[in-house]
Amino acid sequence: MKHFISVHDVEHPQSLVQQTLEIKANARRSEIGRNKTLALIFFNPSLRTRLSTQKAATNLGMDVIVMNISKDGWNIEFEDGSVMDGSTQEHIKDAVQVISGYCDIMGVRTFPNLKDLQEDYQEKVLKKFVEHANVPVISLESTTLHPLQSLTDLATIAESKIQKPNVVLSWAPHPKALPQAVPNSFLQWITKTDADVTLTHPKGYELCEDFTGGVAITNDQQEALAGADFVYTKSWSSYSQYGQTPSVEDDWTVSQQKMNLTNNGKFMHCLPIRRNVVATDEVIDQSLVFEQAKNREFAAQAVLQKLLEDF
Amino acid sequence: MKHFISVHDVEHPQSLVQQTLEIKANARRSEIGRNKTLALIFFNPSLRTRLSTQKAATNLGMDVIVMNISKDGWNIEFEDGSVMDGSTQEHIKDAVQVISGYCDIMGVRTFPNLKDLQEDYQEKVLKKFVEHANVPVISLESTTLHPLQSLTDLATIAESKIQKPNVVLSWAPHPKALPQAVPNSFLQWITKTDADVTLTHPKGYELCEDFTGGVAITNDQQEALAGADFVYTKSWSSYSQYGQTPSVEDDWTVSQQKMNLTNNGKFMHCLPIRRNVVATDEVIDQSLVFEQAKNREFAAQAVLQKLLEDF
Amino acid sequence: MKHFISVHDVEHPQSLVQQTLEIKANARRSEIGRNKTLALIFFNPSLRTRLSTQKAATNLGMDVIVMNISKDGWNIEFEDGSVMDGSTQEHIKDAVQVISGYCDIMGVRTFPNLKDLQEDYQEKVLKKFVEHANVPVISLESTTLHPLQSLTDLATIAESKIQKPNVVLSWAPHPKALPQAVPNSFLQWITKTDADVTLTHPKGYELCEDFTGGVAITNDQQEALAGADFVYTKSWSSYSQYGQTPSVEDDWTVSQQKMNLTNNGKFMHCLPIRRNVVATDEVIDQSLVFEQAKNREFAAQAVLQKLLEDF
Repeated sequence: MKHFISVHDVEHPQSLVQQTLEIKANARRSEIGRNKTLALIFFNPSLRTRLSTQKAATNLGMDVIVMNISKDGWNIEFEDGSVMDGSTQEHIKDAVQVISGYCDIMGVRTFPNLKDLQEDYQEKVLKKFVEHANVPVISLESTTLHPLQSLTDLATIAESKIQKPNVVLSWAPHPKALPQAVPNSFLQWITKTDADVTLTHPKGYELCEDFTGGVAITNDQQEALAGADFVYTKSWSSYSQYGQTPSVEDDWTVSQQKMNLTNNGKFMHCLPIRRNVVATDEVIDQSLVFEQAKNREFAAQAVLQKLLEDF
Repeated sequence: MKHFISVHDVEHPQSLVQQTLEIKANARRSEIGRNKTLALIFFNPSLRTRLSTQKAATNLGMDVIVMNISKDGWNIEFEDGSVMDGSTQEHIKDAVQVISGYCDIMGVRTFPNLKDLQEDYQEKVLKKFVEHANVPVISLESTTLHPLQSLTDLATIAESKIQKPNVVLSWAPHPKALPQAVPNSFLQWITKTDADVTLTHPKGYELCEDFTGGVAITNDQQEALAGADFVYTKSWSSYSQYGQTPSVEDDWTVSQQKMNLTNNGKFMHCLPIRRNVVATDEVIDQSLVFEQAKNREFAAQAVLQKLLEDF
Repeated sequence: MKHFISVHDVEHPQSLVQQTLEIKANARRSEIGRNKTLALIFFNPSLRTRLSTQKAATNLGMDVIVMNISKDGWNIEFEDGSVMDGSTQEHIKDAVQVISGYCDIMGVRTFPNLKDLQEDYQEKVLKKFVEHANVPVISLESTTLHPLQSLTDLATIAESKIQKPNVVLSWAPHPKALPQAVPNSFLQWITKTDADVTLTHPKGYELCEDFTGGVAITNDQQEALAGADFVYTKSWSSYSQYGQTPSVEDDWTVSQQKMNLTNNGKFMHCLPIRRNVVATDEVIDQSLVFEQAKNREFAAQAVLQKLLEDF
């Protein structure tokens, strides 16, 4: 494995899931990262990713340097060839090459602006990191994908040991327009497993077709929930009317009443979650969300270990 | 010891003071914290607490993760049952439970808003941490108490080896309304010792009676200072007119002239201090304030060590 | 070596350059810093300095504490004797003395305000650190000097093994008024070597004469570039019209055409660089700038090691 940007970087996704669970089962610490440095670069807020990845690296003996690049450093220019006589102070390609000189693995979080579909879906910023870094790059959530979260999600589902689970990915309401990274990435990973996958969302909230191959799609949430073993919920903004949030008349909040339609299904969410908007307190408090969060540590450790082994 | 929130968590406060001084005397490092992680969560600014607690944890072999939660993470919701369709992004109970999954001990600093007495004195935020964390919680200063500071203060007083010292806690002027956490906590701890304690403040600045049992109180600063061995000074806002700063006519700034009334008394303050407002440069420059600051490291180390031993 | 503030703190600058290159050649890690703490205090943004100095300290086994003092801590007062009843919350001399109690070496970055020449050139803030710290102080760039950068620059030039290199320091255009710290410091260090040094800048951009002894000066950039082995470029604001940026008619951007005038010369810059303003993409992409950035780690390591050895 050279980078960890999407499921396509992983030869055997299911092996990485198993590796995650083995690390969890044995609370495995190792010295494989001794005298190696992980740099975590954040353009955006982070709680789980920030803490779990630091913890994972420390479990492997690595040193960790964390930087909120926009706050601690200089204003970053992203356009190639630009005449930098405005407010930007350092070109992304210079920053990346410099940082990669001080570390052995580099993580980066970079959210979309949700204004320009082409720009976001080209993963311009992340690609600059891969292009200019001399070290492996880990996505800590990019404009269109969140592979560390998806690996965690698959590990959490695998822990249930349900064969061919019925997995529903449901859109949820939210006061703000959110990226499609989590649902895109979840579909990219879950379709590599034996799960039966159903996607449900209101009209206008269709995801990019690159991610929906092999997935049953319905606009009827209740129909989708019937018989589900796992209900993965997430809000996202429109892909076709890019970044917009077309109005939705029905109630898409996940309630206990809706969960009763499932096959004793488990509610999942990547957090942070807007309580009583995405789902009710009752649903969240009986859910797998804290298991998912806890598994972030072991997923990150599995990814770092794989990168270190393949050096 | 399960948590370190107030003096009531400590079975033998005087033993913890002695432990603090022993660690200082022997510059003791230990490996008791090896492979254990301390997460320090700041809602508010911090210099001494931030640095001294990091240093203390490192002295014990711990890994430390520091997070300015409001700046690095998401906007936090504190109300239970709220419909989170506004500006808050993550519920405190979710954040706490998630963070506690990545660490072995958790410190938190959370200042009062000084608007609602009930809310502040119920320690709503700190209680959420204790309730939802699966690990020991250390207060890095809460809305009403600052136990790490108080332990430090007692250790600094104990270093003088004065039997039954005459200790004065004096209010001081300040351009801003400040919490009562430091004076509350100091009284809570100093009254566990053999010290004679006098509290002096202008009318209107009475502290909550929960903390003033066994303490002589006077509105005459000069009378209080007569014969003092230690003059602990701090500004605070009104408790009865909660968070207000009723005007004060007399001069409460501690000057050398006032210190001359004492028994060769030592000036103490928790820092940061407004020079020439709380006390004059002359007084501060001959004071114990840097000893107090230095002792923060050993006090934090004593607390962490106790928590680790009692795991 | 007691502090690392300017070239005058270094007995043998050339030995420190050699030490830097030896560390690079042998990727030397050491345990000399074990159980020692480095505190890095930033009043201003930093990328290279922040990351390279952390890395260097870790290479030596040190623990590192990083603090953005103005954001994470309290508002700092710099005036002695001031009555602190305004917006500042902690006096610099208190902050420094406290921090130095928690660490063994202290680094500080403090930029000039470019409004008051006397104030900036007296290095008021840095001097407070040296005066009140009980530990060695490293400049991470001060108001008038940037010695870690200069040591790096000399190491990068030394790697070329050119005897008596022809070194040009050229002013460059920039949309903002910048400090003179990098050019001042570069001249202070490069004039300790066998290099032939030429300084070129437009009229009005003369540097302080304290730094230009033994340096040829011309306002004709092209004349200066003829035969150069190294072209060190940097923008700075006026010293005589302090902090101003008198208008410049000629084109001072370094282009490939201009580089063709040199002796196959290498372009150097401390980064961050405004691309296509200070120099063109073409020039930057063939330059030594990433070597310089990488050498920051080894320079910092050489300085820390020297300070630790001389404890």
